[in-house]
Amino acid sequence: MKITAIREAAIPLKSTLRNAAFDFSEMTTSVVTVVTDVVREGRPVAGFAFNSTGRYACGAQMRERFIPRILKAEPDSLLNAAGDNLEPEKILACMMSREKPGGHTERSVAIGTIEVAVWDAVAKIAGKPLHRVLAERYNGGKPVAKVPCYVGGGWYEPGKGVKDLQDEIREKLDQGYTTMKIKVGGASIPQDLRRIEAALRVVKSSERLAVDANAAFDRARALAYAKALAPYELRWLEEPCDPLDFALLTDVARDYPAPLATGENLFSTQDVQNLVSYGGLRADRDILQMDVPQSYGIVQFARTVAMLEGRGWKRNSIFPHGGNQMTLAIVGGFGLGGCEAYPGVFGPFAGFADDAKIEDGFIGLPDRPGIGFEGQGGLFEIMRCLADGA
Amino acid sequence: MKITAIREAAIPLKSTLRNAAFDFSEMTTSVVTVVTDVVREGRPVAGFAFNSTGRYACGAQMRERFIPRILKAEPDSLLNAAGDNLEPEKILACMMSREKPGGHTERSVAIGTIEVAVWDAVAKIAGKPLHRVLAERYNGGKPVAKVPCYVGGGWYEPGKGVKDLQDEIREKLDQGYTTMKIKVGGASIPQDLRRIEAALRVVKSSERLAVDANAAFDRARALAYAKALAPYELRWLEEPCDPLDFALLTDVARDYPAPLATGENLFSTQDVQNLVSYGGLRADRDILQMDVPQSYGIVQFARTVAMLEGRGWKRNSIFPHGGNQMTLAIVGGFGLGGCEAYPGVFGPFAGFADDAKIEDGFIGLPDRPGIGFEGQGGLFEIMRCLADGA
Repeated sequence: MKITAIREAAIPLKSTLRNAAFDFSEMTTSVVTVVTDVVREGRPVAGFAFNSTGRYACGAQMRERFIPRILKAEPDSLLNAAGDNLEPEKILACMMSREKPGGHTERSVAIGTIEVAVWDAVAKIAGKPLHRVLAERYNGGKPVAKVPCYVGGGWYEPGKGVKDLQDEIREKLDQGYTTMKIKVGGASIPQDLRRIEAALRVVKSSERLAVDANAAFDRARALAYAKALAPYELRWLEEPCDPLDFALLTDVARDYPAPLATGENLFSTQDVQNLVSYGGLRADRDILQMDVPQSYGIVQFARTVAMLEGRGWKRNSIFPHGGNQMTLAIVGGFGLGGCEAYPGVFGPFAGFADDAKIEDGFIGLPDRPGIGFEGQGGLFEIMRCLADGA
Repeated sequence: MKITAIREAAIPLKSTLRNAAFDFSEMTTSVVTVVTDVVREGRPVAGFAFNSTGRYACGAQMRERFIPRILKAEPDSLLNAAGDNLEPEKILACMMSREKPGGHTERSVAIGTIEVAVWDAVAKIAGKPLHRVLAERYNGGKPVAKVPCYVGGGWYEPGKGVKDLQDEIREKLDQGYTTMKIKVGGASIPQDLRRIEAALRVVKSSERLAVDANAAFDRARALAYAKALAPYELRWLEEPCDPLDFALLTDVARDYPAPLATGENLFSTQDVQNLVSYGGLRADRDILQMDVPQSYGIVQFARTVAMLEGRGWKRNSIFPHGGNQMTLAIVGGFGLGGCEAYPGVFGPFAGFADDAKIEDGFIGLPDRPGIGFEGQGGLFEIMRCLADGA
């Protein structure tokens, strides 16, 4: 049993979105396939993944370092003890050889995307959905049928008014979502408060509205927003400051008793440890949002979870970044708080299986072997071409 | 006046070195040229830089994002107020457009290397050595003729004994160096103590010997080394733990009253701010070693220096990573503590101008316009081919 090929293609997101910090017009993502010599239903098993959204494609690092290291390794050295499947932990260690300590993001996205594609292959070889494989390995085998799923949106667009925002939220509620996250920080504070109040009139409960500042605030603005937003007691306030400015985050937390959320722009276990050590966060209410494929993948995420549990954090405080099927499998498999959804945004790279249903704020977990990209027509078309070498 | 082309080539270091953390056998570096339409001595002025050592080449990011952003910008928008030279601060801002907060290393090396090459061109257009341009802008115009320069070495090699280490150090002292840094952590503590004692017998003073653990120690080993090495009161103990493990570094500092050094594996001002806020370091003795071309370049380094000075750190505590002419110009220009040297290591990418002299632990600053790569034969051969598009 061995990996016979790993291929990558950089695909543009073709998104016209902007948030308070930047726009997505040049954004790309790396789609990866890990092809094995294991045959299922007459075809070699191939695993798939992509590097989520917000970080650019990273195929050069893959082709120059990580793919050759895996393909040069003795195939048996990358298998589990029984020799009947690939072992992602050994494949991660293989990719990390000859890497200098620190400097995570230059490699964490490339390594994590390959690693998640390996897991897709592992689950397909085992003939199980990935969430079930992960639950067996990392969550005592607890079966989960559905997980909480909130919807993101509320971007700023030229000419988009408060009524348009309300219509957008109503549309999402009609689709089965109950909790919505909207952007803040792309307007003045009074304008944003009007948007929040209008949104609250639609969702009806402060528990059902989160806001996202996308790390755009300087100190004065972060503290001003914290004071202005605190009375609303929203589901959470996300990324009120630079993702590494733990001193400012501590000051924001002091002025903001309601839940804060952050972590999508930290890419190593050590950075997350520093966040919870120095960022003033509160394990009883705050939310952590690491992006798993962008942060070395699932094996390393399990280490991050163990580190967090050792510091008093609960798994239901974790809502990983990335509204996609990889995150869904991870949330279900590890028993995390929930996942996000961006239907119709980021081209084929957001959303779930075509037959996925959202009901009363929950999404069901798929039964397909692996991550289940095969049930996501538009995206799987891209992946299948890559696996066929086309 | 405008930039007409920016080119990159990835060059293997072909180094067989290893330290306590990793080996350099696959290591590459990006050599960059920024070509302008300004003519000096009958040729277009071209600036040069490379991304130091220890981080892999990053030409893909340059070609996909940073070079197109610069070349697409209105040329006048990248000039200084007088319109008579390029303005690196504006070029840095241009490269940073459409970049998400955080995730620094994926971009900081590519951006910083281009930015330092821009500075080489800026100094050549001004007809001055870069260290003088930097002194005028960032150090009150203080002229500096020479700076302290220590030499690194003492790597582990199969069959290399204590006597070979002493011979290596004697050779460096004969070349004019007075202070030497050797590796620790690639052997047992008793073996390393024997190496240190042997080295001290040659350099004669504990002030003249530093040791480097290359971030390889876990908690138990870091604390054991701290206790074992403290009595020697060496010049410094470098990277006793993971570069981002500020809690462990704090504990090491508690057990190690002599100077500690770290920072070469931090790539943003915010990470350095976190280091000095949470890492237990002491501004009166400890050493900071950021690598400028790997950390967004010189404009961002000036912001890091300002942040540090605001927290009570002095410039002579800074010894930037990278034993090369870029670092030499930056140390002289900003009035920093000193620079490192790795003569004969890392192929053509270590060392200074061919006519550079080390005397009594100091190296003279060059008079050539720009960084002065033109005086470094082996390296400039690579750079000239790149500038000519060959």
